[in-house]
Amino acid sequence: MTRAELIAFIRHQKSFLCVGLDTDITRIPKHLLSEPDPVFSFNKAIIDATQEFCVAYKPNIAFYESQGASGWESLRKTLEYIPPSHFTIADAKRGDIGNTSAMYAHTFFKTYPFNSVTVAPYMGKDSVQPFLDWKDKWTILLALTSNPGAADCEQLEDKAGKRVYEHVLAAATTWAGPEQLMFVAGATRVEELKHLRSIVPDYFLLIPGVGAQGGNLQEVARAAMTADIGILVNASRSILYASLGIDFAQAAAAEALEMQQAMAALML
Amino acid sequence: MTRAELIAFIRHQKSFLCVGLDTDITRIPKHLLSEPDPVFSFNKAIIDATQEFCVAYKPNIAFYESQGASGWESLRKTLEYIPPSHFTIADAKRGDIGNTSAMYAHTFFKTYPFNSVTVAPYMGKDSVQPFLDWKDKWTILLALTSNPGAADCEQLEDKAGKRVYEHVLAAATTWAGPEQLMFVAGATRVEELKHLRSIVPDYFLLIPGVGAQGGNLQEVARAAMTADIGILVNASRSILYASLGIDFAQAAAAEALEMQQAMAALML
Repeated sequence: MTRAELIAFIRHQKSFLCVGLDTDITRIPKHLLSEPDPVFSFNKAIIDATQEFCVAYKPNIAFYESQGASGWESLRKTLEYIPPSHFTIADAKRGDIGNTSAMYAHTFFKTYPFNSVTVAPYMGKDSVQPFLDWKDKWTILLALTSNPGAADCEQLEDKAGKRVYEHVLAAATTWAGPEQLMFVAGATRVEELKHLRSIVPDYFLLIPGVGAQGGNLQEVARAAMTADIGILVNASRSILYASLGIDFAQAAAAEALEMQQAMAALML
Repeated sequence: MTRAELIAFIRHQKSFLCVGLDTDITRIPKHLLSEPDPVFSFNKAIIDATQEFCVAYKPNIAFYESQGASGWESLRKTLEYIPPSHFTIADAKRGDIGNTSAMYAHTFFKTYPFNSVTVAPYMGKDSVQPFLDWKDKWTILLALTSNPGAADCEQLEDKAGKRVYEHVLAAATTWAGPEQLMFVAGATRVEELKHLRSIVPDYFLLIPGVGAQGGNLQEVARAAMTADIGILVNASRSILYASLGIDFAQAAAAEALEMQQAMAALML
């Protein structure tokens, strides 16, 4: 999916919502556990219920691989079930030396044909390049997160006061343009999100932390939205587990609709 | 496996060799491709041929997951086949917010019961803690690598000249002791390896880059070996692909033996 196609779909849906499929087998409604593949049954119902209100789905790979080979089968079925209109993100945070990153790129671009994958920048350019070599796919590079541990590495400052995540952003913009590179930017510190946006004015940002992690949608949009929209806002637990009962899909739809309506108002 | 048990096994084997199982289905000998699980058949032969000369095996997870669910089955069989005497490392470089890292820890400590997993530090303490919560398992934290991209993040300096990887090392030693934490330390820059050792005198280092990546075993040992040995030196491609023919296992054994003999000499 090209940048222009993504933007057009966002305008069509009046939504920049990404639904995070962090599907935890211990948290899905009990009545699904008798299904042959409870995780896929849950995801199918969530996708049916939310696709009208979102533009992207983001399976969190940890939740699938923790189930072993059967989890990867649930992932494959889920990916196949997502409508081709919707942007798909493998939230994997992979990154290693070149020949290993090439294997990870193969995993998430070919074996499981996602549109994009999240990548960790710690090992630098040659660990990211194998993902960028897939020109018709997207790399979503981890930049700034909103967890306390961000202080331990991302927020370290150089002698000029420039932080590690700012170095990562500046370097990465020399590796690839906004047609195939996005950044992960945590949402709970709005001033920082605004600052981050000023460093990468043309790149899409994938913003988690709205919903269960406490970010405010209006503030996030004010800080980071551009003329091309330029943001995907992810919500996972607040949608998936809006109800833990048999009405989970309706509750997820209601939650996604509420976010879509708030987003539509912000896009006017 | 405890630190004392690992050290005792290293002394018993007269080896601190870790064999990296970066098993690439496109590089294994053609005669294995008719086997039901060529990757497992290859690994089985490599393990049979090298177990006498090494103390650890390190499957590189990227190579398995790139094959989808069947790759994870090859991984499971490989892990089960590794003798219980040997230390096992899931080379996964995972790391994410807490509840996601908890899932990754479950993957590599429970679903696939490795002794240890490699973890990326970019997101800081709370992304690493869920791995450390498994008190009888090992976390091997990425610190300094030897690829060119190390300059993009790991080697960035603060105003006092302290580098990101030095911050990571210093912080991590406050999170866990040398009984359950090790560090990945690239081998091609020996002066830096010596410096890194001075920051973490008591922790085991997992050192890749000896073999196909060009590090020199004697120099590495001089820089980083301690009274408790304190290092695991990994070789992957130089052993796995010592021969590409039907004699691959004998060639791997010869290569591993040569490294073991060099290590035994260094341990005197």
